[in-house]
Amino acid sequence: MHVMIIGAAGMIGRKLAQEISSSAGLNGQPVHKMTLVDIVEPRAPDGCAGTVSCLRADPSVKTSAVDLMAARPDIIFHLAAIVSGEAEMAFAKGYRINLGSTQNLLEAIRTEAEVSAYQPRFVFTSSIAVFGKPMPDAIPDDFHTTPQTSYGTQKAICELLVNDYSRKGIIDGIGIRLPTVCIRPGKPNRAASSFFSGILREPLAGKQAILPVADTVRHWHASPRAAVAFLVHAATLDTDGLGSWRILNMPGLSASVAEQIAALERIAGAAAVALIKREPSAEIAKIVEGWPQDFDAARAISLGFVGEQSFDEIIQIYIDEEYGGNWP
Amino acid sequence: MHVMIIGAAGMIGRKLAQEISSSAGLNGQPVHKMTLVDIVEPRAPDGCAGTVSCLRADPSVKTSAVDLMAARPDIIFHLAAIVSGEAEMAFAKGYRINLGSTQNLLEAIRTEAEVSAYQPRFVFTSSIAVFGKPMPDAIPDDFHTTPQTSYGTQKAICELLVNDYSRKGIIDGIGIRLPTVCIRPGKPNRAASSFFSGILREPLAGKQAILPVADTVRHWHASPRAAVAFLVHAATLDTDGLGSWRILNMPGLSASVAEQIAALERIAGAAAVALIKREPSAEIAKIVEGWPQDFDAARAISLGFVGEQSFDEIIQIYIDEEYGGNWP
Repeated sequence: MHVMIIGAAGMIGRKLAQEISSSAGLNGQPVHKMTLVDIVEPRAPDGCAGTVSCLRADPSVKTSAVDLMAARPDIIFHLAAIVSGEAEMAFAKGYRINLGSTQNLLEAIRTEAEVSAYQPRFVFTSSIAVFGKPMPDAIPDDFHTTPQTSYGTQKAICELLVNDYSRKGIIDGIGIRLPTVCIRPGKPNRAASSFFSGILREPLAGKQAILPVADTVRHWHASPRAAVAFLVHAATLDTDGLGSWRILNMPGLSASVAEQIAALERIAGAAAVALIKREPSAEIAKIVEGWPQDFDAARAISLGFVGEQSFDEIIQIYIDEEYGGNWP
Repeated sequence: MHVMIIGAAGMIGRKLAQEISSSAGLNGQPVHKMTLVDIVEPRAPDGCAGTVSCLRADPSVKTSAVDLMAARPDIIFHLAAIVSGEAEMAFAKGYRINLGSTQNLLEAIRTEAEVSAYQPRFVFTSSIAVFGKPMPDAIPDDFHTTPQTSYGTQKAICELLVNDYSRKGIIDGIGIRLPTVCIRPGKPNRAASSFFSGILREPLAGKQAILPVADTVRHWHASPRAAVAFLVHAATLDTDGLGSWRILNMPGLSASVAEQIAALERIAGAAAVALIKREPSAEIAKIVEGWPQDFDAARAISLGFVGEQSFDEIIQIYIDEEYGGNWP
């Protein structure tokens, strides 16, 4: 089995490549080849039994997408995107990368299939950014997509493409809408969502963190480990169970900032919590106010996708993965 | 005011051009110029007070879209599309015409606006084909789009683009989802929906018509006159009232085939009804079964869009428009 990860240099891409390398295979089939693709050369994971190719390529360039698909991977994980903030500022670039790449890859697969039979599993990572206000407290599986950002628009369009190319038998596609991934390792960044990870990650490292919103703010979270497990499950499940709509809201954990902080206190004590500094930002509060707070992800759960049950669990996963299980 | 109709050689495009020519203007402003565009040269309407240009052009070709938008029309009606059946058979052509043209036009407007201020009203005709099963008996305004055809997918994608380009201030856009237009003038065609018009139009002309489905089949209709009025209203209403989601289900009339036939009998008598020949087609029945039957188009109605109240009215409009009001 040949697995290709497009967007393999990103945080989730790296963890996914490592997970596949570390496991015996996918669906009981050994992975004899793994191709890792990104606009910067991805790092090969440790201990992969098969061949690993690390390629610098940009599928928003048509010929590049054609070259990638000429290798006829059995499973394609398409994670490549520029983030919400950048897509909002660089309108044309957002459409080129976040929509154009997907269009190019799907068309390259269609052209490949015209030469001889080819129908790869195509796992597309979508986002809860496809939803816009007004929203119910818990978003159901059949809630309509009214994105309020270009990023969300591009993801919603790709979902429609993945579904239609699947319906026509060109790909065996599935689109999964990931919750906000928490705790993101690394440094704080300028994303409006950065603080959701920051208020846990920074105090765990003995550093101060800024909380720009009220403790009552509620959001929808999954750990990086859960996100990787969603992707692997999406790559291996029987897509017959998806029926005619192949896009799924992933399960997650709806938690308020207060609940995040309470979990931090249980695991790391009052000293860690004391490192959270409240600096309300009207700007960030306004952005976050437009985000989903909770989902009823019944369909994905019935299909075997599993999210976290508590923020203690999410923090523990971070400690496992980033501190080798030993904290402090 | 310069009005451009793209797809002006089609049935609705022709009627729209005539309506604008016959009226004093749009929103009280005279139309000094009308540009009619299609892949075959459109016919100029009668009695237009301003200049009329009839152009043969294909906006699915990027340079052609750029040329069209260089004329900086104040109002653009984008009606051009290939129909559902053709888009299903000719996959690449469907994406090129139904999606590519819209992308090219929107990008050409964005590029124009980079030269100097330009933000046209952009009226996009979408379709109830964006919806797929399972559906409630009456589809609400916030029902999710899960198209089951490539045509419906292309329309749903264009809706997202119209909304995002409007949100960014590139266009002042609006997308209207038209009901099935009935009674279509002309000849029966091979569209699965052809019979909805055929069972009325043909008997009115003293000809036999085939009814391939049960009398209980229910569908969502609007007359060509209502469709033209929707377009004109969409071109002239205050878009502030649309909020952040600029796509609307148009009002229509939910009627069963039996109700259509009863109206025909009231207007044209039992002799006309006797010309309807029942020839059940499992194939057509299966296609039609996947179509919407009824809507609660509350949002469009509150914004001043008006549909028909009875099939008698729809038949009378056909008699007015095609027989000059005199039938038989």
